Amino acid sequence: MINNDIICAISTAQGNGAIAVVRLSGDESIALCDKVFQSPTNKRLIDQQPNTIHFGNLLDGDRIIDEVVMSIFKGPKSYTGEDVVEISCHGSVYIQQQVLQLLTKNGARLAKPGEFTLRAFVNGKMDLSQAEAVADLIASSSASSHKVAMQQMRGGFSGEILNLRDRLLHFISLLELELDFSEEDVEFADRTQLNDLLNNIQNLIQKLLKSFDLGNVIKNGVPVAIVGHTNVGKSTLLNRILNEEKAIVSEIAGTTRDVIEDVINIEGVAFRFIDTAGIRETSDKVETIGIERTYERISKASIVLLLVDATESIEDIKHAIKTVENKIAGTDKKLIVAINKIDQQAVDTNLEQLIREKDIILRISAKTGENIDQLIEELLSVVNLASLNQNEVIVTNARHYEALEKASESLQRAIDGLNTGITGDFLAQDIRETLHYLGEITGEITTDEVLGNIFKNFCIGK
Amino acid sequence: MINNDIICAISTAQGNGAIAVVRLSGDESIALCDKVFQSPTNKRLIDQQPNTIHFGNLLDGDRIIDEVVMSIFKGPKSYTGEDVVEISCHGSVYIQQQVLQLLTKNGARLAKPGEFTLRAFVNGKMDLSQAEAVADLIASSSASSHKVAMQQMRGGFSGEILNLRDRLLHFISLLELELDFSEEDVEFADRTQLNDLLNNIQNLIQKLLKSFDLGNVIKNGVPVAIVGHTNVGKSTLLNRILNEEKAIVSEIAGTTRDVIEDVINIEGVAFRFIDTAGIRETSDKVETIGIERTYERISKASIVLLLVDATESIEDIKHAIKTVENKIAGTDKKLIVAINKIDQQAVDTNLEQLIREKDIILRISAKTGENIDQLIEELLSVVNLASLNQNEVIVTNARHYEALEKASESLQRAIDGLNTGITGDFLAQDIRETLHYLGEITGEITTDEVLGNIFKNFCIGK
Repeated sequence: MINNDIICAISTAQGNGAIAVVRLSGDESIALCDKVFQSPTNKRLIDQQPNTIHFGNLLDGDRIIDEVVMSIFKGPKSYTGEDVVEISCHGSVYIQQQVLQLLTKNGARLAKPGEFTLRAFVNGKMDLSQAEAVADLIASSSASSHKVAMQQMRGGFSGEILNLRDRLLHFISLLELELDFSEEDVEFADRTQLNDLLNNIQNLIQKLLKSFDLGNVIKNGVPVAIVGHTNVGKSTLLNRILNEEKAIVSEIAGTTRDVIEDVINIEGVAFRFIDTAGIRETSDKVETIGIERTYERISKASIVLLLVDATESIEDIKHAIKTVENKIAGTDKKLIVAINKIDQQAVDTNLEQLIREKDIILRISAKTGENIDQLIEELLSVVNLASLNQNEVIVTNARHYEALEKASESLQRAIDGLNTGITGDFLAQDIRETLHYLGEITGEITTDEVLGNIFKNFCIGK
Repeated sequence: MINNDIICAISTAQGNGAIAVVRLSGDESIALCDKVFQSPTNKRLIDQQPNTIHFGNLLDGDRIIDEVVMSIFKGPKSYTGEDVVEISCHGSVYIQQQVLQLLTKNGARLAKPGEFTLRAFVNGKMDLSQAEAVADLIASSSASSHKVAMQQMRGGFSGEILNLRDRLLHFISLLELELDFSEEDVEFADRTQLNDLLNNIQNLIQKLLKSFDLGNVIKNGVPVAIVGHTNVGKSTLLNRILNEEKAIVSEIAGTTRDVIEDVINIEGVAFRFIDTAGIRETSDKVETIGIERTYERISKASIVLLLVDATESIEDIKHAIKTVENKIAGTDKKLIVAINKIDQQAVDTNLEQLIREKDIILRISAKTGENIDQLIEELLSVVNLASLNQNEVIVTNARHYEALEKASESLQRAIDGLNTGITGDFLAQDIRETLHYLGEITGEITTDEVLGNIFKNFCIGK
């Protein structure tokens, strides 16, 4: 899987720009560039200092491909740990393609997705969870996902895992020493201390596992299903939230043709508002309120935001709330009911009664903005931002979560075994297994298949 | 219009990439970066050598925005002629926006389209036609448009214009000397030599003006209207040409909702195949052949490619050819008739007769590829690539064309005046006017309005 040949790729975003950057990595990459680069003073790049920039022409024989700026990095002090050249060229797609063709003609090959970062991992520039954080960082679209990815890339998460491993390694070396002297029936590893340690580590792992709920919503956004009939004011509400938050809205394609998602960053957390386009109103009450067709949306959401019209009858409103409550019964989904258009309707005593009965009901006006701050507060309440703000380590990666779950299982076997007095060799085996799973996270233990799965999801050029 | 404040912009293509580059220019740009950049060794960027690269963190107070690589350029040896910093950051749109916000918060402002290149022009790093070539280069999508833009950016066209100006300037100084000694009735400027010179220059300008036809098709692609009914094999033909040329096809939105254009590079020249989606077949012969609705396409095309079906009757084919011929009568559009599906039909003697009568008819099979090379040759024959290959200067810019036309007019007045013996002061005035228009091309003579018009069409970040 790992080669030391020269790889090249366009590292900047696809399409025309003012400039584009084509990156090469490999031990002969600077020498390769000397074959196609001519500086005004005819200097050779290979003779230049690392971390320097050189202007000149990129030539295919006599033909000038472009006037470029070459940035030279020398291994091991480079992103990949190898010699790296970054070619900054004019940003037409045509020129970008020409530069790539020129480089491949002269001995480079096109990089696979994530191959630069893979080389950085192989060459010990970063561990596996840091490499994964690079991809997360590039995909980050909110302050919180950016923060968590940055912390992970900078080794926060790896540090926590390595710390757990180190403490286990100390004890396992004592346990294995016992095995060497097994005929003499000695105990180098104090069983009480070991028990304390294993329980300590188990607590830490459990805490990390619990952080995944938060990590997951931070990374992927909090899915909010907006439920309500066509004219209840869904887009007015989204626009109002946008205005309050001065956020950037983006519309992304949903899983079905009908579903669109608006991602809105609220206080640094991405909320994915899932709406269904083109729901037809029918005379059927349930269908009018738009619930039946929204079952799938609801099933994918963490929050169900039921939007009803203050001008509707109290029976209709009650019916709608009841229907949604039934749908989400037994799940941990949070229901928020927002009664919209209160600017158009005097408060009904029956409605007041209902609001007193249920503490999940807010009266809002998307049009005037009334109580929108309360709604935003309700939305944010599902995200426990305290641990994010305290710089705690948060698990965002499903692969890490799975490894931690397995580590926790084998650790629990060790703890139980210790209590029932199993022999040192079984104990050592369970702890070794725990070490194995923790090592999978940082990549101390890995396979080509695991690496392949991780890096295939990277973008090309990183 | 011209300021020396610090401008900043994302210079790479829009969207997520592995990396993105944010560029700053301005005399205090390096000092600004020192306020937000921290290297591992706490070095200051302002103390570093030009053309060097520095790794570190971009900080907003305590918050790490990103791990970045800073490239430092010092004026006048930079793109703009001012101090320039290029920040290479992780390529998420979120991070790109955060970096821009950080820079504007610390005293930079967002650059206007083309403002970096405008500064390069103002600071004498390039003349106006070279600056315009930068935009052309970024937009170039074929070998020929790339070549012409590159030649212009490297000063080929400017050199030609400056040469003409220099020769005129020499004579005008003699003419104006005469005016100073007008009472003594001397002639420092030899009228025969002046006549030769002016005619020489007029010939050169005419040659440049003529090159605009080629320049225009090189820059914008050769528009080819494909005319024919729905099942005649238009897309099969385009795919076949694509295969023969191993070219990249791109579909661009046309001027009307119905029209799509496929741009195919054939031997380095872009051909824009204009097709109409969704033409309905009718029983009317003319309409069946798809001509009536295609009048607008034809009016915009340099080449009309009429595609007919070999299995149709000879009368229908003749009728189709006649109809198109009538449409383009009196224009300089080239008609090519391709009789497709010859693999499905034995040669008809009537058809053979028709082909003998008209030399514009080709028999092809888009399916098997038969005679596609001949068709490509016919397409290429409208583009005079000889002058391109001889590295002749080619005018591609409508602004340059207009200025050359005006220069030609005033020059002709000077020539005519010289022949009718007008006085030196009138002669000098006409030549001054010619110089003025030539100076407009390279930007020696310009106005804020002209500059504004030119640079507003640039992309941001260049």
